[in-house]
Amino acid sequence: MTIILGLDPSLSCTGWGVIRAEGSRLSHIANGQIATDAKAPMADRLAQIQRELAAVIVAHAPDRAACEEVFVNKNPQSTLKLAQARGAVLAACGAAGLEVREHSPRSVKKAVVGTGAAEKTQVQAMLKVLLPGAQVAGADAADALAVAIADAHSR
Amino acid sequence: MTIILGLDPSLSCTGWGVIRAEGSRLSHIANGQIATDAKAPMADRLAQIQRELAAVIVAHAPDRAACEEVFVNKNPQSTLKLAQARGAVLAACGAAGLEVREHSPRSVKKAVVGTGAAEKTQVQAMLKVLLPGAQVAGADAADALAVAIADAHSR
Repeated sequence: MTIILGLDPSLSCTGWGVIRAEGSRLSHIANGQIATDAKAPMADRLAQIQRELAAVIVAHAPDRAACEEVFVNKNPQSTLKLAQARGAVLAACGAAGLEVREHSPRSVKKAVVGTGAAEKTQVQAMLKVLLPGAQVAGADAADALAVAIADAHSR
Repeated sequence: MTIILGLDPSLSCTGWGVIRAEGSRLSHIANGQIATDAKAPMADRLAQIQRELAAVIVAHAPDRAACEEVFVNKNPQSTLKLAQARGAVLAACGAAGLEVREHSPRSVKKAVVGTGAAEKTQVQAMLKVLLPGAQVAGADAADALAVAIADAHSR
């Protein structure tokens, strides 16, 4: 049995989702979103993401973490914000001794829907099938659960 | 009297420098570099930077921190690495309750050398004048001390 923490880092709203994998059988444990105040200083927003994520890690004791390979945005300022949030998220995982495995967006869609060209809405619909009963906190938490599922399937 | 922590974040080697400012009088307290193993997992490298930086903050109890505004590199992978390291560094400051002030590279050179077009070697030479007796750990620590000096001069 493996507990996997899926992560979808972003400065404004970081999604997280915890699933249990027993062989090919998956079940939902918890998910949520860490929203930060756009008016707060960058250092405080990043510290908040780490603090809340550290609490999630303590609460659910995952065996490993997973996130999507980073998408380098054409807008340098967006890339910078995303990458800074990603750095805070990865550091929190490292501090907790978690390995973080990366998966391409395509492989995540393929794992969840069966095709790498799936739409976001298809991914969200399949989450309901793959993790029955899960109340998903929002689009970012859905993305985090999807990457956790992809990680479970990749081993 | 104000204790200022200057920071030069990077994934491979993060520079830090602590100075004391009493009015226009500056003095060196400490400086160093946090080097990470390029072969280690990203999450572990970022966690190491945070851990060592947190120890620096505890040891020297700065009143605030300062770093250069980020330079968005033309190489997206370099920007990503730098920004992830920066995210870890800023989060560590935020967790310690430190305000982080940002200064442009030009304003740092101007504060230290007197001209925004100064060369790196000029900056390093002026550090010896402005912070007599400081043993500087390396180029990244020198950059961190320079931004601390710029921050002291900006108020």
